[in-house]
Amino acid sequence: MIIVFTGDGKGKTTAALGQAVRALGRGKKVLIIQFIKNCESGEHLFFKKIQTRVLAGKIKIISAGKGFVKILGDKLPLGEHKKAAKNALKLAKKEILSGKWNLVILDEINVAVSLKLIKAADVLKVIRINQRGNLYKSARIIILTGRSAPKSFIKKADLVTEMKEIKHPFKKGAQAQIGVEF
Amino acid sequence: MIIVFTGDGKGKTTAALGQAVRALGRGKKVLIIQFIKNCESGEHLFFKKIQTRVLAGKIKIISAGKGFVKILGDKLPLGEHKKAAKNALKLAKKEILSGKWNLVILDEINVAVSLKLIKAADVLKVIRINQRGNLYKSARIIILTGRSAPKSFIKKADLVTEMKEIKHPFKKGAQAQIGVEF
Repeated sequence: MIIVFTGDGKGKTTAALGQAVRALGRGKKVLIIQFIKNCESGEHLFFKKIQTRVLAGKIKIISAGKGFVKILGDKLPLGEHKKAAKNALKLAKKEILSGKWNLVILDEINVAVSLKLIKAADVLKVIRINQRGNLYKSARIIILTGRSAPKSFIKKADLVTEMKEIKHPFKKGAQAQIGVEF
Repeated sequence: MIIVFTGDGKGKTTAALGQAVRALGRGKKVLIIQFIKNCESGEHLFFKKIQTRVLAGKIKIISAGKGFVKILGDKLPLGEHKKAAKNALKLAKKEILSGKWNLVILDEINVAVSLKLIKAADVLKVIRINQRGNLYKSARIIILTGRSAPKSFIKKADLVTEMKEIKHPFKKGAQAQIGVEF
């Protein structure tokens, strides 16, 4: 099952994280690969703590990004971001092939594609692994998050929600808050 | 700060749960009160495990509902659902007044209002407690989830996202899955 959370509103990554919570509560195994974020997020801190202290082997979070791309003071050459995103996709492929995970979250992968760090076609190849016959017994779910999801992802997905911004305090000049936005 | 997650698409409750994850990762204290669900959900199982084993005193989840209302074989008299929702709101008031929580999630409270289990005006009274001057030092966030959010909630909120259904497998007759939908 392929799920896409996209749109310009708040709640895409967090909806995926909530899905992880629900799956873990049911004893399922969850992998999160973050394509843009580095290790500085609240969710990274949380799951790192959980994975070593309670749910060993049940949850893994890999923040494989290099942080925001071309915004908020990012000065890293685009090539570095590309390299990071490509490595993240390689890792995703390896982990999905391992057959170990019931839920795989590819966080901000839509953004990585829309910024041309990786290609939609390459992502679809990796996703297709998930659907190979009955190779794996566990019902497997892949969640793709991030604004501007490519049309090919929407077409491929079983479930798509658009998080639509109705009201946002940033529009009034409010600042991003630690523990809320990241 | 008041956040509303509404709309007919998947990802409202899970976005709130993800917000809880992010806040907990930052050492903040999170209370979740579920207005419709009982203790049978994956998120309940997960946070119960976490609260006793890692984050004692940092996270509390109270599933105060009586389950689905008037659908999926619910035979409980409406009065019982009303009683449960009213008690949940009373509890929310008490907990918010305690000043203990940085993030308070009132899950499916929009649904409780739209089903006329509780009144929007009574919810707004409770929310207003949160905004009393500088009574509490901690930046406080309240998240209201559920489809059909009353207009008064949207008006009061600082941030509103509509989770819009673009594609959903239930439309093709798929069944709700444990660990995905609940």
